[in-house]
This record gives sequence, structure tokens and C-alpha cells, in this order.
Amino acid sequence: SLPRGMHTVTMIPGDGIGPEISSAVMKIFEAAKAPIQWEERNVTAIKGPGGKWMIPPDAKESMDKSKIGLKGPLKTPIAAGHPSMNLLLRKTFDLYANVRPCVSIEGYKTPYTDVNLVTIRENTEGEYSGIEHLIVDGVVQSIKLITEDASRRIAEYAFEYARNNQRSSVTAVHKANIMRMSDGLFLRKCREVAEAYKDIKFTEMYLDTVCLNMVQDPTEFDVLVMPNLYGDILSDLCAGLIGGLGVTPSGNIGANGVAIFESVHGTAPDIAGLDMANPTALLLSAVMMLRHMGLHGYGKKIETACFDTIRDKKVLTKDLGGNSKCSEFTADICRRVQDMD
Amino acid sequence: SLPRGMHTVTMIPGDGIGPEISSAVMKIFEAAKAPIQWEERNVTAIKGPGGKWMIPPDAKESMDKSKIGLKGPLKTPIAAGHPSMNLLLRKTFDLYANVRPCVSIEGYKTPYTDVNLVTIRENTEGEYSGIEHLIVDGVVQSIKLITEDASRRIAEYAFEYARNNQRSSVTAVHKANIMRMSDGLFLRKCREVAEAYKDIKFTEMYLDTVCLNMVQDPTEFDVLVMPNLYGDILSDLCAGLIGGLGVTPSGNIGANGVAIFESVHGTAPDIAGLDMANPTALLLSAVMMLRHMGLHGYGKKIETACFDTIRDKKVLTKDLGGNSKCSEFTADICRRVQDMD
Ligand SMILES: CC(C)[C@H](C(=O)O)[C@@H](O)C(=O)O
Ligand SMILES: CC(C)[C@H](C(=O)O)[C@@H](O)C(=O)O
Repeated sequence: SLPRGMHTVTMIPGDGIGPEISSAVMKIFEAAKAPIQWEERNVTAIKGPGGKWMIPPDAKESMDKSKIGLKGPLKTPIAAGHPSMNLLLRKTFDLYANVRPCVSIEGYKTPYTDVNLVTIRENTEGEYSGIEHLIVDGVVQSIKLITEDASRRIAEYAFEYARNNQRSSVTAVHKANIMRMSDGLFLRKCREVAEAYKDIKFTEMYLDTVCLNMVQDPTEFDVLVMPNLYGDILSDLCAGLIGGLGVTPSGNIGANGVAIFESVHGTAPDIAGLDMANPTALLLSAVMMLRHMGLHGYGKKIETACFDTIRDKKVLTKDLGGNSKCSEFTADICRRVQDMD
Repeated sequence: SLPRGMHTVTMIPGDGIGPEISSAVMKIFEAAKAPIQWEERNVTAIKGPGGKWMIPPDAKESMDKSKIGLKGPLKTPIAAGHPSMNLLLRKTFDLYANVRPCVSIEGYKTPYTDVNLVTIRENTEGEYSGIEHLIVDGVVQSIKLITEDASRRIAEYAFEYARNNQRSSVTAVHKANIMRMSDGLFLRKCREVAEAYKDIKFTEMYLDTVCLNMVQDPTEFDVLVMPNLYGDILSDLCAGLIGGLGVTPSGNIGANGVAIFESVHGTAPDIAGLDMANPTALLLSAVMMLRHMGLHGYGKKIETACFDTIRDKKVLTKDLGGNSKCSEFTADICRRVQDMD
């Protein structure tokens, strides 16, 4: 059993640069004396008894117990019929909300400054239903599924998030002018939930208008909530505004505290094992995780150290514009974290 | 009957600022001695004999004859069940390709320079099928319809466009990792068509990746082709990169030369009638129209005059950063056009 105050987290290092960046994160957590005990698990899809794809039992058990996971990049399986591991994980643990804070990083130059928004994506249905049919030769339909329950649940999550994170507005992103019934239902639930959060401003906007305004002035946005596919698009677009997937954290949240935090960049096989990877996205995801667990002090300390290292510009990995190794970047953050004590 | 060399174009001035900006365009065309005779028609949706929504017969007849339309903004009807006029026009004339060149405008500052790309959007099916069902209480599905014919047709259009406009690559934008059958079919047709255009480089990319890369470096893109909804999003995003809908032209292309060119901004009722509107988007759409009609010389002349006026910065409408009236901006372009003779 764990010492008092310690928490177990399931660590899924992932493929490619995954092991390097997760070991960087664990080093920094150690330097910060964060009360986390890691339980490392590999995750590859396996075929269960009924022929159904599932994640390995020891990973499932660890997550069931710890409830919290931190995950590096997983390579996309190429075998036909093989599911995306990311989708399988979201499904296995009913991680219904994908949360991505996009906040400009001081010292890391992009065409935008002062971006400070959060995309909240419905993670379980919509265009990702997986239901498709061949109607007649040459005619195919895909089904977008929107339910009242999932829409209400994600809307409630968004407003709760806004309230708990001192944010002042929630924008529902939709195309209810075109998909009147499905996006219409989603939007109606958002409106209903908004009624119960009078302290949070509620607005609604068409997805195309959001994209247009986003690249013109992202600072006008705060919390955005939307169906699955729109979130897929918008979360990547917003990550681009602050410097890309290498610096953007992400969390997948389920019921009863279950959550998996992850870097959403790829496995970068070309630089795997070369001590060149940038652990920032996974580290900032781990910071989100600490906050989710109520460990705000540790979160703040590690986040500050990471941003200080980036702002300082002396020890940066190649993708951040420097020529330091992953281990040097990690050591610099460790040093800062220790200096704070 | 028309004098030799003259062409009739159906002009749909539209609502709000529509009449002002279309009269600006007509003045500039007159100054340029463009061989166009305008046939003005109003367009509002009316209910036909069978209760079906249709555009007024005199507008339909004019378009059937002229084959070419130029259209200002139309206000979105608020009556329930009333169709979007834009969708009704696309449908009535089977305008299957929406084409939007997004090219940085010298002198009009945005966070990006050297953007030079074209989005080509399938305009007739996909998520815009209009087919939706209530499955049980609280569960709704919308159907995304992808056909082989429409996919091949838009892919062929994109490659033809690239070839005829000295562009070197076409990128198919999709989510075939998620919508394997529908986007899969679209992608397969793009690949097949690509085989016949060995002079044009073909690539394929996920929609989310395109959005991410687009805001980081739009200069890496050339011609992009995609299903309906993705085009709705991406065309607005790209318009944002070069300054918004006020400066972005658009064309809806059908078979046999039929086409409607339009500004895609709103009706701006707040400034309607105040001589403050910016006619640039409609004017550049009219320039696209001239090129479509093979009147390249007139197109070049008017485009050059418009860009010169903007680069010069002396006579600009408010939204462009100046304090001139629509009529003054128009007069400045007219003067330049006349000086070129
Ligand atoms: C890997 C892929 C299935 C996934 C998605 O489309 O949701 C990814 O783009 C994401 O955003 O997590
Ligand atoms: C007005 C609306 C129906 C339309 C669309 O969604 O296609 C608009 O956004 C467009 O891009 O022309």
C-alpha cells in the first residue's frame, strides 16, 4: 500500500519518442517531489474473446484502480480493421470530454500573442459513431449521432470547467443552420444548461465563423464547447496558434474522476531514441493532471519551471528553436523546480 | 439582341449593403469598358406550386439564359422551414464546386504574408444532404452522403483548375481515418483522378492536420479539395488569413459554364445605405467571373486597380483601415482603371 498522501498514476509511455518524454516527465516530477507513484503499462490493442478489440488487461486493471493515466504518443496501427488506440482508450473508459487549454507561451514566438482559451470537445459520439453504410454502388452514408444525454453532459462539463477555472464565457460551436436536428439538439442542451450558470456568459457561434474569427483575433474566445468532429478540428487549429502540438497539453475526462492526460503529437519515429524530443506537451499535460487531482501547488511549480526554461531561451530542444538535448532541457527544468524549494 | 462581343450577366444585388456594393462594381466595370450588360434580378425564396421552395421565375429565366450570375449578400430568412437562399441557388443551378482563391493583399496587413492558395469545396452533398432523423426521444442522426459521381466530379474540377491556373499541387482534405467509407470513397476518387494528372502533384491530408499547419504556415498549401462541410470551415479559415470575408472572392461553378460569383460576407444592415460599405469582395468575385468568361484582360485591369488602391492606402473604407466612403473608394478604382487605357 502507498505511503500517506501518495497517488498512483498509470503511465503509458507510448511509442517512438514516448519512452524518452515520459521518462523526462518522471524526472521532473521527482525533482518537484510530486507525490505520484507511477505504474507503467504498455498499451496495444489486442483481440478479446469475442473478437472485440480491447486494451491489455493489465493496463485496464491499473487504470481501473488508479483512475488517472498519463499517456505518450501511440503509433497508429496500420492493420485493416484495427482501431485507433486513442479512440479505443476514450471508449474503454468513457472519457467523454476532451479538454485542451491553448495559452500563448511567453518567449515562444507565433503570429499570435495573448491566446488564452480552452476547447472542450464531446469525445464519444457525433461523426465518430462509426456507423456507415453502402446504400447502392457508389453511394455511401456516414451517420452523425447526437444524443440529448451526451450533449447535456458535455455542456455541463464546459460550464463547470468555466466556473472552476475562473473563466467568464462559454461559446457553443455548431452548424445548426445546416444540421438542424442534430446540431440543433446539441445547441438546445447547451442553452438549457446555460440557464443554470448565470455567472458565465453564454454565446453560440457557427463553426465557420469561429474559424474565421479565430485566425483574425483568438483573444476574443474563452471556453468553447462543441461536438466531436468540430472539436477535432478546432483543437488542432488552436494548438497551431500557440506553437503546435509539441507545446499543447490535452486531457480526456470521464465520470467519477477517471481521466487520461496525453500529448497529442505523433511518435516522431525519425528522432526516437536520439535524445532530441521535446517533452513539453506531455509535461504540461501532466500539469493538467496534477490540477485535476487537486495538487495545484505541484502543478504551478512545474508549469512555472517549464515556462521559465522556455522564456529563458538558453536550453531549448531543436523544435523550440534551440540545440539542446531532451535530457538537457529536462535537467534545466529540474534545476528550476529544485531552486523553488 | 446584344451588340457583338457583349455578354449578359444576371446581377443579384442582394440585401443590406448589397445594392451599394453592386452599384460600385457596375460603375467600375463601366469605367473599364468591360463588355458586360447587367440584368438585375431580385432573389427571395418563394413557394412554388407543389409547396416547394424556389427562386423567382424571372431570376431563374435570366440565369438560364445568361448562365452567369454575380450576387451580393442575401439576408438569411428567419421563417421556420425557409431554406437558406445560398443553398437554394447552389441547388437550383447544380453549382457543384465552390472556389475560393485566398491570396494575400499587399498593403493590407494580417499576421500572414504570401498566402496563395485556393479552396475547392464540394457544394452539393456530404453533411449538407439535409437528411436527418429522430431515432428515439433524445437521439438524433444526421446523414452525410458521399457519392462516387460527385466526388469524381469535384476531384476532376480541382485538377482541371490547378492545370488551367498554373498551380502545381492538389491536396485532398479528409477524415478517412474516422469516416472510412464516406471520406474513404471521396479520397479514392481523388486518387483515381490524380492518376490522369501526372503534371500536378497530389497529396492527401487529415482535416485537423490541415487546420493546424494552415495557421502555422499557410504558404505550404496550393489547391485544396474537400467535401462540403470541410470546405465550409476551411474556406472561412483561409479567408481569415488574408483579411476576412470583406476581401475574399468566391465562385460557385456548375456544368456547361453556369456559375454564380458572390461576396460571402453578410448584409451588414447596420451600415446599409450609409455609403460606408467595402465593395472589394464583390469586385474581386466579379474579376473571377471575368476570368471564367475568358475576359482575362478586363479581369487583370480591374484587379490591378483595386489592389493599387488598397496598397496606396489613401482612399480606403473604414473596415480596411481608412475613413473614405464607398463611393470615394469606388471612384479611386475607376480613375485608375481609366488611367490604364
Ligand atoms: C488519431 C485520431 C483518431 C484522433 C481523432 O480524429 O480524434 C486525433 O486526431 C485526435 O484529435 O485525438
Ligand atoms: C449560409 C450558409 C448556409 C453557408 C454554408 O454553411 O454553406 C455559408 O456558411 C457559406 O459558406 O456559404
